[in-house]
Amino acid sequence: MAITIAIPKETRSGETRVAATPDTVKKWTAAGITVRIESGAGLGAAITDQAFIDAGAQIAKSAVDAIAAADIVLKVRGPEAAEIAALKSGAQVIALLDAYREKDTLTALAKAGAAAYAMEFVPRITRAQVMDALSSQANLAGYRAVIDAAAIYGKAFPMMMTAAGTVAPAKTFIMGVGVAGLQAIATARRLGAVVSATDVRPATKEQVESLGAKFTAVEDEEFKNAQTAGGYAKEMSAEYKAKQAALVTAHIAKQDIVITTALIPGRAAPILVTKEQVASMKPGSVIIDLAAPQGGNVEGCVPDQIVDVNGVKIYGPTNIVTAIASDASALYAKNLQAFVGLLITKDGALAPDFEDEILKAALITKDGAIVHPNLQS
Amino acid sequence: MAITIAIPKETRSGETRVAATPDTVKKWTAAGITVRIESGAGLGAAITDQAFIDAGAQIAKSAVDAIAAADIVLKVRGPEAAEIAALKSGAQVIALLDAYREKDTLTALAKAGAAAYAMEFVPRITRAQVMDALSSQANLAGYRAVIDAAAIYGKAFPMMMTAAGTVAPAKTFIMGVGVAGLQAIATARRLGAVVSATDVRPATKEQVESLGAKFTAVEDEEFKNAQTAGGYAKEMSAEYKAKQAALVTAHIAKQDIVITTALIPGRAAPILVTKEQVASMKPGSVIIDLAAPQGGNVEGCVPDQIVDVNGVKIYGPTNIVTAIASDASALYAKNLQAFVGLLITKDGALAPDFEDEILKAALITKDGAIVHPNLQS
Repeated sequence: MAITIAIPKETRSGETRVAATPDTVKKWTAAGITVRIESGAGLGAAITDQAFIDAGAQIAKSAVDAIAAADIVLKVRGPEAAEIAALKSGAQVIALLDAYREKDTLTALAKAGAAAYAMEFVPRITRAQVMDALSSQANLAGYRAVIDAAAIYGKAFPMMMTAAGTVAPAKTFIMGVGVAGLQAIATARRLGAVVSATDVRPATKEQVESLGAKFTAVEDEEFKNAQTAGGYAKEMSAEYKAKQAALVTAHIAKQDIVITTALIPGRAAPILVTKEQVASMKPGSVIIDLAAPQGGNVEGCVPDQIVDVNGVKIYGPTNIVTAIASDASALYAKNLQAFVGLLITKDGALAPDFEDEILKAALITKDGAIVHPNLQS
Repeated sequence: MAITIAIPKETRSGETRVAATPDTVKKWTAAGITVRIESGAGLGAAITDQAFIDAGAQIAKSAVDAIAAADIVLKVRGPEAAEIAALKSGAQVIALLDAYREKDTLTALAKAGAAAYAMEFVPRITRAQVMDALSSQANLAGYRAVIDAAAIYGKAFPMMMTAAGTVAPAKTFIMGVGVAGLQAIATARRLGAVVSATDVRPATKEQVESLGAKFTAVEDEEFKNAQTAGGYAKEMSAEYKAKQAALVTAHIAKQDIVITTALIPGRAAPILVTKEQVASMKPGSVIIDLAAPQGGNVEGCVPDQIVDVNGVKIYGPTNIVTAIASDASALYAKNLQAFVGLLITKDGALAPDFEDEILKAALITKDGAIVHPNLQS
């Protein structure tokens, strides 16, 4: 029997994304699945109700109306109490549950008898790449960090040769070379900045250089031998750390733009830029702190505000992808669609295989309990 | 005898630029000129009082204190009544006077016995390129228009190939290919957009294509023969205009980003995008109207607001370069410095040559009267 998928409108303050697009809806409705979307759910991502209707969806007047009969509920952020109360028992709920911080939501989902999955917990294996929401969102966060920096910065990024003189290119330093950092490097390079980057993992040097940026690290013998067979960084000596810190301090003082991206899910972000390093920068410089959701990489960062420290502007958005909600929704919806493929048959019947390693890794609540091993307290 | 140059702090709402930089100050003070800068004048452009002091300037407590003994007063925008009242008779005042609209200021300057020059009136001859403030500011306006569009747009500009699917590049259309339009094309191309552009002057086709963008115009025999020997566009036939309008209408409906740049100093801006054309665009599209200071190229544009018309966002900033005040100030200060070179000797003595064609073209008031031929009423 074909099933019903519900997409309520996001309710968190500032959350503009939506968990489905006309593109994903079309594929489900073609498979005979009923899709119920709360009216207005797509507006933050520039998707009208009519666009969803044209894709075959039904429009529900409220979240409860969308959810009530749903076998699967798709969300961006964890559901609210009223949404959880509306779930039918055994409903499958998939979202970015922020499981380490939103335990009350998990408890409520368990009590409601829902099978809830955290998209952040999808393992980073090849088969799951298409479901990797952390990567899809981090990529856009890295792009958007550079756009925000360019919007805050009172100069141009590229070098410009004009009749009245030459405008120097922006010196841009990316700290942390994961998915977000790599896209930040690529975007800053596109805009014409002079880009450097650093990371504790020596393997990132080649990636940084392949994007036309300079890798900034103390490259002594210890560094060259730092990588383990598994591609991870070894713990470096205190002596190495001190040399690297001195290098970074001298480097930051010369930068126009610094973008920090060291965000470790479920843990406090490490401080990468101290208040002394902020003070060493020229007035007019800009720092974007992508770790603001977890406390920030930059001393003095205040979440979602542009802080001015003697002319240096620090901006730490806690949900930067909401500023690029259309693409963020499109990619997240694709991630969800791939994940939903693990829960249903080709004919659109509900049949989750709880032995699948991806489902197992992402499953948080089932049969009335919080079942994920990391969340047992 | 060496002279005094004064730079008061700008007073107009939102005006963040300043008419000098440490770089220009250094050259004057090296020539024995006294430079008096009002405290805080550079802060909007990230220049501290200390940076001006280090360059050899004196800091004045107020605009009046800076101006009182000055032979030359440099401003971004036209002076206020209190500033004019503080001028000594025969003072030289140089600014972007917006002479066609701010006639009261001109009258007051004349009454005060000032020789006032409008930087907008500097002629576009080779020798005056270094003083061409309209071009230096338009160049930055074109860059900034794309940054603003990218900041407002809910998607990415470049194509991105990700595990969860491909993000399409932003289709970007630049209307009007002057200095601002050319820099907008270059910046949008840098960011990875698919760019097209149009202009009534056929000679711009080659410039557009040299930047990697597509020229969008009806290229029939009439078009090919449209250019006069002087490089100007001939008046086109009604038939041609209708064909071109149809082409542009069809083109706009497919765009994600439209940037209009048809700003004609001293005249109302022509409408380039009608409300029907706005309505034809997809929700989420963005229009930046650089002609907002002169009424706008886009129907429905409200100065300095982001207007949402069924999901299409229209933004018409009236002074966009204030968002890039450091570079805008640096280039404008260089323009002023070159212009001041026409008023003083190498030793720093005041000696304007009123027969110089550049001075003549820019001179608005002298010896108690408004003297510019375009401003006689």
